[in-house]
Amino acid sequence: MINFSSENFDKTHPKILKALLKSNTGFAASYGKDEYTIKANTKFKEIFGIKEIDVFFCFNGTGANNFALSSITEKYSSILCSDVSHLYTAESTAPEAFTSCRLYPVKTLNGKIVITDFLRKAKIKNDVHLPPASVLTITQPTEYGTVYNLKELKIISKHCKANNILLHIDGARLFNALAALNCSLADFIKISRADVLTLGGTKSGLMFGEAVVFFKSKRFKNINYNHKRSMQLASKNRFIAAQFSELFKDELWKEIASHTNNLAKYFEQELIKTTKSAIAYPIETNMVFLKMKQELFNKLISETNFYRWDNDLEEVRFAFSFSNTKKDIERFLKEHKKVMKENNLLN
Amino acid sequence: MINFSSENFDKTHPKILKALLKSNTGFAASYGKDEYTIKANTKFKEIFGIKEIDVFFCFNGTGANNFALSSITEKYSSILCSDVSHLYTAESTAPEAFTSCRLYPVKTLNGKIVITDFLRKAKIKNDVHLPPASVLTITQPTEYGTVYNLKELKIISKHCKANNILLHIDGARLFNALAALNCSLADFIKISRADVLTLGGTKSGLMFGEAVVFFKSKRFKNINYNHKRSMQLASKNRFIAAQFSELFKDELWKEIASHTNNLAKYFEQELIKTTKSAIAYPIETNMVFLKMKQELFNKLISETNFYRWDNDLEEVRFAFSFSNTKKDIERFLKEHKKVMKENNLLN
Amino acid sequence: MINFSSENFDKTHPKILKALLKSNTGFAASYGKDEYTIKANTKFKEIFGIKEIDVFFCFNGTGANNFALSSITEKYSSILCSDVSHLYTAESTAPEAFTSCRLYPVKTLNGKIVITDFLRKAKIKNDVHLPPASVLTITQPTEYGTVYNLKELKIISKHCKANNILLHIDGARLFNALAALNCSLADFIKISRADVLTLGGTKSGLMFGEAVVFFKSKRFKNINYNHKRSMQLASKNRFIAAQFSELFKDELWKEIASHTNNLAKYFEQELIKTTKSAIAYPIETNMVFLKMKQELFNKLISETNFYRWDNDLEEVRFAFSFSNTKKDIERFLKEHKKVMKENNLLN
Amino acid sequence: MINFSSENFDKTHPKILKALLKSNTGFAASYGKDEYTIKANTKFKEIFGIKEIDVFFCFNGTGANNFALSSITEKYSSILCSDVSHLYTAESTAPEAFTSCRLYPVKTLNGKIVITDFLRKAKIKNDVHLPPASVLTITQPTEYGTVYNLKELKIISKHCKANNILLHIDGARLFNALAALNCSLADFIKISRADVLTLGGTKSGLMFGEAVVFFKSKRFKNINYNHKRSMQLASKNRFIAAQFSELFKDELWKEIASHTNNLAKYFEQELIKTTKSAIAYPIETNMVFLKMKQELFNKLISETNFYRWDNDLEEVRFAFSFSNTKKDIERFLKEHKKVMKENNLLN
Repeated sequence: MINFSSENFDKTHPKILKALLKSNTGFAASYGKDEYTIKANTKFKEIFGIKEIDVFFCFNGTGANNFALSSITEKYSSILCSDVSHLYTAESTAPEAFTSCRLYPVKTLNGKIVITDFLRKAKIKNDVHLPPASVLTITQPTEYGTVYNLKELKIISKHCKANNILLHIDGARLFNALAALNCSLADFIKISRADVLTLGGTKSGLMFGEAVVFFKSKRFKNINYNHKRSMQLASKNRFIAAQFSELFKDELWKEIASHTNNLAKYFEQELIKTTKSAIAYPIETNMVFLKMKQELFNKLISETNFYRWDNDLEEVRFAFSFSNTKKDIERFLKEHKKVMKENNLLN
Repeated sequence: MINFSSENFDKTHPKILKALLKSNTGFAASYGKDEYTIKANTKFKEIFGIKEIDVFFCFNGTGANNFALSSITEKYSSILCSDVSHLYTAESTAPEAFTSCRLYPVKTLNGKIVITDFLRKAKIKNDVHLPPASVLTITQPTEYGTVYNLKELKIISKHCKANNILLHIDGARLFNALAALNCSLADFIKISRADVLTLGGTKSGLMFGEAVVFFKSKRFKNINYNHKRSMQLASKNRFIAAQFSELFKDELWKEIASHTNNLAKYFEQELIKTTKSAIAYPIETNMVFLKMKQELFNKLISETNFYRWDNDLEEVRFAFSFSNTKKDIERFLKEHKKVMKENNLLN
Repeated sequence: MINFSSENFDKTHPKILKALLKSNTGFAASYGKDEYTIKANTKFKEIFGIKEIDVFFCFNGTGANNFALSSITEKYSSILCSDVSHLYTAESTAPEAFTSCRLYPVKTLNGKIVITDFLRKAKIKNDVHLPPASVLTITQPTEYGTVYNLKELKIISKHCKANNILLHIDGARLFNALAALNCSLADFIKISRADVLTLGGTKSGLMFGEAVVFFKSKRFKNINYNHKRSMQLASKNRFIAAQFSELFKDELWKEIASHTNNLAKYFEQELIKTTKSAIAYPIETNMVFLKMKQELFNKLISETNFYRWDNDLEEVRFAFSFSNTKKDIERFLKEHKKVMKENNLLN
Repeated sequence: MINFSSENFDKTHPKILKALLKSNTGFAASYGKDEYTIKANTKFKEIFGIKEIDVFFCFNGTGANNFALSSITEKYSSILCSDVSHLYTAESTAPEAFTSCRLYPVKTLNGKIVITDFLRKAKIKNDVHLPPASVLTITQPTEYGTVYNLKELKIISKHCKANNILLHIDGARLFNALAALNCSLADFIKISRADVLTLGGTKSGLMFGEAVVFFKSKRFKNINYNHKRSMQLASKNRFIAAQFSELFKDELWKEIASHTNNLAKYFEQELIKTTKSAIAYPIETNMVFLKMKQELFNKLISETNFYRWDNDLEEVRFAFSFSNTKKDIERFLKEHKKVMKENNLLN
């Protein structure tokens, strides 16, 4: 069976697994005092080209996002997030439990925040009755696989600074965006001027583990206390650290992200030979969203696993992971074409 | 100076003050074990015509709403509220602190929830990633002074039951809606089938105090513990209870509400002689919202106090309280007309 | 029936009621923008002899304490409190909901914290696994009516500064301690170097209302936002402010506190003529705790209302309020003596 | 260097690693819908001999304990825990963030709760001012390595039922207690009648992962929603499930636990040849606590890693993990003896 459901369905990437096994030797200090964590921290500083950063490893994306946001907000604040963000639609009430903040959704187009709506909400200030906007969180790439380009990032950053709003970036799949933009992590941070970054590992081939990076971190007091409180401090932290070090080595992240981005491009190229109208959002990274009738979905799902994303909008999602191949896509599209033809369907 | 800012600016209603003073005699048991509270409870049962209710007095509206909602929700739930509701726009992050729930805003028209948007959000269920919709809270009358009529209430109630969603009504100004609908509290609850009601006292002439009423209250366990936790249990509870008893006596609430509703009607009648286009929302209770340019507002505010409600929409609000009179309105409208004329303004 | 249960059972003090009625005139700005609040704030600055203070009025003691503490703590901190404190034993889980902090109880003797135990817990620092001690809260007078003398306050203050721990004082009955110490509010703060003070009004004759005073308040950011979030911002704030102003006028607080302290002294003097052994704690303010068998309590309770405080320890409490008189005490003690004699009881 | 610091310092157990690698094949459904999780669930039911259980995998101990407790408590409740418990001393304020409950510490002797103190606190009920005691959590084996025997467990269980208090067991090292008691998991639950169990994996040789088991789980509604909210739902859940399945296979847990328990016994036997007085607590599982002067500790720490547990009490801790050997102990004790002799020390 072909699997295009999610990168979370995939196994650990072979190179990362190898690094993980290598770290599984002898004793190592717990709670991040080990050599693997120290090395990984040094690696992060190198990669970002900034010395004043603080890196904290986390178990999963929900943990990482909520640890990140609860470290930089006050309990009477609001967090502006996109109305389709993972934070707003897929993390239960963990944000409320951890940050105590209000989430105010910002309208989106193709997954990206609409600047005018953001600006309207950024003005929530100076009134004790309303929780003042203190952080904007954007997802890069977005939940629809689209990418904020460098110009858009500069604009967002400028408005954040002007409105005294911190910028958090949920980068669960950030490497795919970087590959698409042909941009380094260091440049990405220079341009976006993000204050805090959630850097996803799980969706990039790790067995488990995410990283949260704070920039000019001295501003934020006692992040380490909040890290423990957020239940994200791993006792055997070396196992997350070792995986991240490997991801950075020889730009393995770029190899993986380019491969999966290319699969999406290939999918698009081949698909439009048959049907153009189905594509729901611009295909810019490793995800493809199509409009698809329930009937067609029902017929295809028996041989290929992919998500029914939105019932009302009749959208489905394909997310490509490192184990996927062009052959998988060819096989799927062949079947897709066949079923459409047999059933005289449009999409 | 004339004051149309808010009922909160007004003094205590003379009859209520008299009752308050009468209760200020001798010793009375603390924390609601006193005779005044017991009597008020009996009065509530009479007025609502239901025996299985539980009444809890609270200090203010924010306290009452959040106590009410935190008593009937789970920490992983979401609360559907109107996008202009007091809860969503004027209670800081108290909802997050108390209920731990997500607030999901429902679109509104003239302050009333749009049913299709409500239904779309009511379907958030059966997925652990999203906080499931467990309560709908509506404000009656709405923050724009409009009223859900009995048919609309029946429809909302029906959808709530069908979707297994509890209904909370924020009735900070409920008496104004009841007077407008010519409906008793008992009938209102029968028709709306509300599960919990916040019944406002402060805006109806009380010195302070609100009531929260739970219907079929046995369903909700240990509300009294949550009442104390919500910091709403007054040590000298008699002083709230005595005021509410008076409000119900000889339907004082209706006298007050009819007076202030009539003022709004009068304002409308007189205003449209000069300008029709200014009225922003249907005038159904004691509040009037007008479109008004900043320039005009600046000129009028020196003699009359009223709210600049929304800068972007250029809306102002007039809320009539029991101390206001027709003369106040006449005086204001005369000035309004004069300034408009002098400045050659439309509204 | 005589009532020695609690100051909360008493009515509003006549002078305060008069001031309250006087404030009940015309319109006044809501949410603390009114003249009464502004005047009261000025009065507080005068009384404390400090300009850089911030005063916030609250509805009740639980609200005041939790607003105060949540304004000066971080969500990963711990609060050290006496093991018999109101905060730890009588405010439900409001502290957890509001502060998100751990409460660590400090051992007490006669209601006062044991310094060695405090110091042991003050050392909880520099370890992310434990919530670091950031605030000590003491009650003055204590829940047992005993008073920290000025020397003790200096010692506590010194240890707080040395350990980088803020000091909060729960002064629900502070005026009784001040009267006992013959100390002004200004001197009390100079000596205790408290960072935040909860100043009780309800137990001192107010209808309702407490005040929270922050010293060197610029250190604490956005207290006003947290005040609203804590649901303690009264819409008709003038009614609390006017009562506090009266309490300060001509030192009314001292008149009330001296009267109730004297009642307790008188009770003690008369009691020891009959029985010495019954007194459970040093009588230093307006409360008397006695050891009393259930049997004796049962016989006395029919004519006099007082609290069965602790069943295990067989302790009862008498709290004297402004309406109580020497005659009440004489009547009670006569009955007490009679019942003891008839039943051949010791205490 | 010898390492007796903590099981958390040790690598993944070879057999568990092998199972982990085996599970790292192909695609598997995310969020626990995979075959490995389904199999592990079946295995748990077998091992516990109960069908009505619900098993949830978690990332770490703090996550597991707080998910467990927040699933069975109300926000106005208190949790009784031992005053030396991990929950009370090593999980930051995660309990407050997640459960909203008060933690009330119960006195301990050798790490075990003192029944009389537990019973005194179990009576906190029926008073809205105090958070009522709703759960007791005990650690088995305790933080000092001591074990509640079956008789003690029966007594605790009896008192819990009699006082309507649920029982949670923090079994971060439960397998060591079971090996010491020669008791199966099934019998342990039958005897303790625990309502919820945290079953530690990390300290038993797993790379990461804990399990929380609910018994008669239908009583607790929507645990799965709270699991997600607690940020413990792993996207690649198979990797935790596969490790637990292996731990149960051929009673691998018993092999590991017996080995480490035996090391502690051996340590004790050899130590008492030199010094008897040093042993701080009965040695019943895999941990040894000694009284040790700072001077001696400083000299030994250069060659052997172990914890300075309590500075005030001058206690140190040795925790034996599966990689430790008798030779390690012999080497350490030889050094220990030598240094003591050279320095003319007692312990």
